[in-house]
Amino acid sequence: MAHGAGGKASRKLVEGLFVPILSGALPKSLNDAALVEINGAPLAITADSFVVKPLTFPGGSIGELAVNGTMNDLAVSGAIGKALVATFVLEEGLPTSVLEREVRAMADAARRAGVSIVGGDTKVVEHGKADNMYIGTTGIGQMMAGIHVDAASVRKGDKVILSGPIGDHGITILLARGDLDFEADLRSDTRCVLPLVQAIASEMPEAIRWMRDPTRGGVATSLNELARDCGLGITVFEEQIPMRDEVRGACELLGLDPLHIANEGQFLAVVAPDAADRALAALRGTPGGEGAVIIGEVREQPASAVLITTKYGGSRIIDMLVGDPLPRIC
Amino acid sequence: MAHGAGGKASRKLVEGLFVPILSGALPKSLNDAALVEINGAPLAITADSFVVKPLTFPGGSIGELAVNGTMNDLAVSGAIGKALVATFVLEEGLPTSVLEREVRAMADAARRAGVSIVGGDTKVVEHGKADNMYIGTTGIGQMMAGIHVDAASVRKGDKVILSGPIGDHGITILLARGDLDFEADLRSDTRCVLPLVQAIASEMPEAIRWMRDPTRGGVATSLNELARDCGLGITVFEEQIPMRDEVRGACELLGLDPLHIANEGQFLAVVAPDAADRALAALRGTPGGEGAVIIGEVREQPASAVLITTKYGGSRIIDMLVGDPLPRIC
Repeated sequence: MAHGAGGKASRKLVEGLFVPILSGALPKSLNDAALVEINGAPLAITADSFVVKPLTFPGGSIGELAVNGTMNDLAVSGAIGKALVATFVLEEGLPTSVLEREVRAMADAARRAGVSIVGGDTKVVEHGKADNMYIGTTGIGQMMAGIHVDAASVRKGDKVILSGPIGDHGITILLARGDLDFEADLRSDTRCVLPLVQAIASEMPEAIRWMRDPTRGGVATSLNELARDCGLGITVFEEQIPMRDEVRGACELLGLDPLHIANEGQFLAVVAPDAADRALAALRGTPGGEGAVIIGEVREQPASAVLITTKYGGSRIIDMLVGDPLPRIC
Repeated sequence: MAHGAGGKASRKLVEGLFVPILSGALPKSLNDAALVEINGAPLAITADSFVVKPLTFPGGSIGELAVNGTMNDLAVSGAIGKALVATFVLEEGLPTSVLEREVRAMADAARRAGVSIVGGDTKVVEHGKADNMYIGTTGIGQMMAGIHVDAASVRKGDKVILSGPIGDHGITILLARGDLDFEADLRSDTRCVLPLVQAIASEMPEAIRWMRDPTRGGVATSLNELARDCGLGITVFEEQIPMRDEVRGACELLGLDPLHIANEGQFLAVVAPDAADRALAALRGTPGGEGAVIIGEVREQPASAVLITTKYGGSRIIDMLVGDPLPRIC
């Protein structure tokens, strides 16, 4: 299960198996979307599969997640999703009403995100050979003008912006499974972050060095991947990290680090230091971006690692997610 | 299961549920690939998921099928696949060696087909929540010059070309499952048909009216979809249909119609009457196209239906596949 959790084992699987075998084909630095040129036009392509359990949860559902998740992978790659295709693996006996509900959720999410679903495919497997339904979505996007998202362009002094509170999605899913004894008034943060990305990108595309939506593996895993890819150190100020009390409480109870919990409606952006305040203001002035904060900065040390500092002067290295405390989160 | 078989129930699901809900988004006539314009460049996009059982079979495997199937959907839409992305849903406990074998099969198939695999995603579900592995592939292609594949352009008198013998894939899978008491020296026909399509398209793109790879549901389902979409009648000369003795024998024993059996390396092309002989010669002159034949023609009657005529003067209407005699064929 850990190989699917988006943390260390996932990266090992991708770097140790997929990349070498498909080598030459996969891009050098692993981003959320691949850039290809067809007919001389630069395009971003990204693919995702969704196996979230349960299918619906406060704030969203698998269908809606399948659209937003793929739109977000494109957005943080600097691309505006223009077309989506979807594949369904359905378990024999799945009620049509459930399928219809999720297709409707996809259509609604696509409308809100301004993207067209242009095609798809459906397979049915025997009862017990899938868990209700799995959805795959691939998105094709057009690059935003003047944007170049690349870990290699990150420099010492750059600021790390986070779009809003973390952990809502992961903890919501955990509670929706009903395995735990407590309840909390929490909803998944699932949404399309494209308008937020555009708020910065339209004003100062050149200031954006790197972006990522911290889904599986959470903020800690995304920042560790960045640290590894750029070779610099990412320092995060713990007291700056926005988090709801319900998420903090659940994590404390369960012994989870909220920085490892999945998000579905937030993104991280590393921006040039002199543009950070303007970028933050642009985000905060956009609906849904009011909770954006600068949570850290890029330093030389610790090289290729992420350091969390507390307001009392303490600090600790935080690694990628190891193992899988929350399987099938998306 | 019938909803996933590619026949009548599948079409009902697509036309009755997916299209109305995603309406405006899905194209009017349902083709193997959608055409979209991004940055002013026309692109073909197609998505497929693969749940074939068993994972490997004489002549191929799920990974290789996942590449060729998507390349073929693009090819018969008149597009050259330029980039693929892949998604994996893996069952917990799947041996790494199996995954590696299939990723290698994908890489080999991609190399042979001249396409790059540019990205992907992996999810892992609990043991018993998938059947080893499912693969989704999405392909992006560049349209071939001068080609316009559209059922609406089919005219009375057009000829129907089939690239080679039918039923090899479906019967191979059936035998590979080991449920039957007989054996046959048969291999799946899985391959990339792009070179064959290009053999016609490069010489006489304007002569091609329509193409389709008759996978799930077989030749009969593809031709029924064409008949329905163009409103004309498709007459097929039974004695012209190429078929290996092993396929014929297995179908007779099992009471299956070979015209409903899935293929993975053949395609149907409807071409203008005056170009039919040249198109056939071009196909036959291309490695792998030696078995191509003209199997039928387009007539006014029976409107929107497919008629099979025998050499003894008999004839019968053949419908789309109903039900699912061979689940999880691809």
